[in-house]
Amino acid sequence: MLDVAGAELLLTVDMLVESVDFERRYCSGADLGWKAVAVNASDIAAMGGRPLHAVAALALGPEVELGYFDAVLEGLLDAAAHWRLTLAGGDLSRADGMMLSVTMTGMCAGAPVLRSGARPGDAICVSGTLGGSAGGLYVLTNDLPAEEHSALVQRHLRPEARVEAGRLIAQHGASAMIDVSDGLALDLLRVMEASGTGCAVDGQSVPVDPDLYVLEGQPDLPPALELALTGGEDYELLFTVPEERLDALERSVTATGTMVTRIGTVTDGAPELDGEPLADRKELGWDHLQNP
Amino acid sequence: MLDVAGAELLLTVDMLVESVDFERRYCSGADLGWKAVAVNASDIAAMGGRPLHAVAALALGPEVELGYFDAVLEGLLDAAAHWRLTLAGGDLSRADGMMLSVTMTGMCAGAPVLRSGARPGDAICVSGTLGGSAGGLYVLTNDLPAEEHSALVQRHLRPEARVEAGRLIAQHGASAMIDVSDGLALDLLRVMEASGTGCAVDGQSVPVDPDLYVLEGQPDLPPALELALTGGEDYELLFTVPEERLDALERSVTATGTMVTRIGTVTDGAPELDGEPLADRKELGWDHLQNP
Repeated sequence: MLDVAGAELLLTVDMLVESVDFERRYCSGADLGWKAVAVNASDIAAMGGRPLHAVAALALGPEVELGYFDAVLEGLLDAAAHWRLTLAGGDLSRADGMMLSVTMTGMCAGAPVLRSGARPGDAICVSGTLGGSAGGLYVLTNDLPAEEHSALVQRHLRPEARVEAGRLIAQHGASAMIDVSDGLALDLLRVMEASGTGCAVDGQSVPVDPDLYVLEGQPDLPPALELALTGGEDYELLFTVPEERLDALERSVTATGTMVTRIGTVTDGAPELDGEPLADRKELGWDHLQNP
Repeated sequence: MLDVAGAELLLTVDMLVESVDFERRYCSGADLGWKAVAVNASDIAAMGGRPLHAVAALALGPEVELGYFDAVLEGLLDAAAHWRLTLAGGDLSRADGMMLSVTMTGMCAGAPVLRSGARPGDAICVSGTLGGSAGGLYVLTNDLPAEEHSALVQRHLRPEARVEAGRLIAQHGASAMIDVSDGLALDLLRVMEASGTGCAVDGQSVPVDPDLYVLEGQPDLPPALELALTGGEDYELLFTVPEERLDALERSVTATGTMVTRIGTVTDGAPELDGEPLADRKELGWDHLQNP
């Protein structure tokens, strides 16, 4: 949070790198542009804010066709229109392969919700469903028919950012919030670490994307719950809220069409999932520079 | 320019890509971090603004040593302290090679100076000297002894951003401004195109970096004036100002230790240098994606 003319400005940056975050063979230029805006809007949403402006830095090599580049711009503009933010400019460079970095400003009506505010006794909740993006990535990288799994594929290539839900969750007194970009387990650990708290999470209650069950039995596909815990890129909101405020919050968010699921409770102990240390699962989540 | 809580926010992004904008063999991590902040501060300076905050997105491959990465952070923080701005966070990714993108916010005391305000009769001026950065790059890429040409090398690796000069130039009524990042000729054409004007520029008056003359006679080195016109990365300010305001502006900026040189006059004709069309020189300047 930054002080600008007396108001608090949110500033966030996220970068998508070819061969690391996406492949051009399955991610169209329009998908890439959309996603680069969405992941930043999701960061703003996770503080309870509203996106205002974005700038994009795009690097591409001579092997990238001009049509792909044009489509990236189109995707950026589509997403900017979708979240009613201003695409305010950018920078263009050469590179090997393709890289798109978007920086976004945003603002909160009240105080921004941080990761550090969880208190023992608070309910732990998550919006929507989890694991679908990882399922979509599995479909794309294993060359399964994308049209048969279009919901999963769309979750991966065209993520939604929960901007409206994030504002309502903040208004209803969430004590901490983060967006699920690196997997529920890892992002939950981040909130617990920032808050200096533990948690008791019930694996059965984790809202697994129902479309994942159609994929069951595919070779080398982790169980649906594992994808939900460690898959990442779902861009749902993980938040904590005092018990007594949960009902009103849930009613308000559900009324906008976004599901809210309680998955556990903040404790003053260690972070646990089904009574086992959650820390053991950290290695399963996506962690920058560590993932192979 | 963006409206934030009633104030105008400047937002700029610039990206440095390994093998395109720098090589690790001659550009230390600290140099890279510094430069990524400087080039953005220069963009803000060119609107007459003051840098406020920055975020950095860094991508690096496994071949980049941890020490280099640490030095980049150090360089970012050094430069942030130098221009009194807040480094507010960032994003870290893997990639092939190294890439650093910095986004910066800034603010103006008055209205921002644009590229589009030049009017026929205005004086055309430039701060400092030009061509030194290109000379420094020549020294580095041709393995000349860097210590013998340290001023040129520093101009390339540790550019200054003319933040204080930019604010004074704006206060004294500059009608248009740009920073010289891609060479005087190309950046001048950009101002003329945005303003719908021409210019008459006198090549003899272009303030060539005096350190360049020591390099004269080196193989394949363009003449000093050519480096000043097309070398780029000088991060000096090129601006236009009504004749009657030039004296006061010059006194004010010179008092801060930054030289101001008049190089020509805005016309209602075509952009010309020494009576020849300036457009012919466009190909000599650095243009993204076109440079080999």
